[in-house]
Amino acid sequence: MTTHPTVAWIGLGAMGAPMALTTARAGMTVTAFDVSPASLDAVSEHITAAASAQDAARGADVVAVMVATGAQLDSVLFGEGGIGEVLTPDSVVLVMATVGPAAIEDAVRRLEPLGVRVVDAPVSGGVARAGTGDLLMMVSGVPEAVAAVQPLLDAMASNAPVVGDAPGDGQRFKIVNQLLCGVHIAAAGEALALADSMGLDRAQVHEVLGTGAAASFMFGDRGGRMVAEAFDDVRSALDIFVKDMGLVGEAARTVHQETPLASTAEQLYLRGHRAGLSRKDDSVVYRILRADA
Amino acid sequence: MTTHPTVAWIGLGAMGAPMALTTARAGMTVTAFDVSPASLDAVSEHITAAASAQDAARGADVVAVMVATGAQLDSVLFGEGGIGEVLTPDSVVLVMATVGPAAIEDAVRRLEPLGVRVVDAPVSGGVARAGTGDLLMMVSGVPEAVAAVQPLLDAMASNAPVVGDAPGDGQRFKIVNQLLCGVHIAAAGEALALADSMGLDRAQVHEVLGTGAAASFMFGDRGGRMVAEAFDDVRSALDIFVKDMGLVGEAARTVHQETPLASTAEQLYLRGHRAGLSRKDDSVVYRILRADA
Repeated sequence: MTTHPTVAWIGLGAMGAPMALTTARAGMTVTAFDVSPASLDAVSEHITAAASAQDAARGADVVAVMVATGAQLDSVLFGEGGIGEVLTPDSVVLVMATVGPAAIEDAVRRLEPLGVRVVDAPVSGGVARAGTGDLLMMVSGVPEAVAAVQPLLDAMASNAPVVGDAPGDGQRFKIVNQLLCGVHIAAAGEALALADSMGLDRAQVHEVLGTGAAASFMFGDRGGRMVAEAFDDVRSALDIFVKDMGLVGEAARTVHQETPLASTAEQLYLRGHRAGLSRKDDSVVYRILRADA
Repeated sequence: MTTHPTVAWIGLGAMGAPMALTTARAGMTVTAFDVSPASLDAVSEHITAAASAQDAARGADVVAVMVATGAQLDSVLFGEGGIGEVLTPDSVVLVMATVGPAAIEDAVRRLEPLGVRVVDAPVSGGVARAGTGDLLMMVSGVPEAVAAVQPLLDAMASNAPVVGDAPGDGQRFKIVNQLLCGVHIAAAGEALALADSMGLDRAQVHEVLGTGAAASFMFGDRGGRMVAEAFDDVRSALDIFVKDMGLVGEAARTVHQETPLASTAEQLYLRGHRAGLSRKDDSVVYRILRADA
């Protein structure tokens, strides 16, 4: 493998597209597939479209996968037309989606007999940082496999710590990240809902408490959207945390660790989903707690 | 009243002592009382000791109260030897303790007929910032009363926003602050406990997640103590959040606002109290969630 691996890219969604473009702009040859032809058209200036996932993956040194769910990962790898059939020994599958450790371990179990290695590197940082190559990527895998995908990590991330040798450790790290994010967003909503109910000026609450002991990244960021009630300006949809708090619960259950706050926050995201708010910005959790508003 | 009001100070605990000293150093004459003679001795270079709360309060323009609980506030004002008997019209009682809105409203109801005004200005920031005059104070009261205590606020706080005209609004603001702080500390404990249980390096988790979307002041601050398991190095005792999450619950109940995360976090603090951890640093909530450790 050269310092410029050939890259197959599966999944050009809100995060996947800017990440693939950042990779291509760093000098790597990227061939992509997405179930949406429009997504392929949108990046066609820098990235070659393939007719299928198998066509994209055939002969690639690295297959980068940025899908939405564990079920989609399974389908891409092992479903009808899955790339598992065309991967060559010593190629590396780089999974950047947040799918939980169990999905990664299942992929490893089925790919290892083919000589294919897996690197698990879920991301944090949002669409804007994806476009500038400033993501946080939580990387796990054996050293040779991590070395093989290093040019991609360098292109996409400003920080890509190796957090474990076992694929799945990256997901575990991301699970902890999402526990904090999901609880902090819900706490911001709860705090501002209580401020309202007590007759305080929630914009002043957000401004004054945004810098002291009560501060969090999410209170600053999502809190501002809560104050503005800008729930249709969707930066990150509620259903992402419906999924991710589910992964937190599943991971915690697997190791028999109680996580009462994450569990409580999950109920709020589920309530929002049931109330038809799935596609609203996740800051809508504030509105969920103000049923009178 | 001059720009240098004479100040009576009641309560020289961990926060009260440095706050009183900061006030005295700003040029105000401070006469203090505390139930502990040792606390009075410790500040005797800058502050005159009184033999009783009434002796301290007699003739003072401002009576600054920094006790621990609403019951102590009630006792100082209206108990045997309470200062309510010696306060003169146009004097101002400045309550800086976190006692909840109900205790303040009760004090107002009983002091107003005497012509005594109340300013409610609970603080956030900890002992170190108390010593340097860098606290956040959340101030409420009628404008003339706030003006009367302004020299004290200027001495003690780097930020002292007026958050309402009604005494009690400062407490409501502080309640929102404590909701966020109490939930964020517990979330930090839960995140690091889950990291441990999943076999991750919790020091790396703390370092990597301390700057991104998962960051909070409390994850940075208390998270560091959790990683070090420095629960006997008490910066802020667990029982403070036992009290304050109780005040959050009471305030939320009064306005019929659900606060599921605060309620869940409160159970963890109560569990710690029952487990004999009352006087440990509040970062011990991490240990509470690792019953196996």
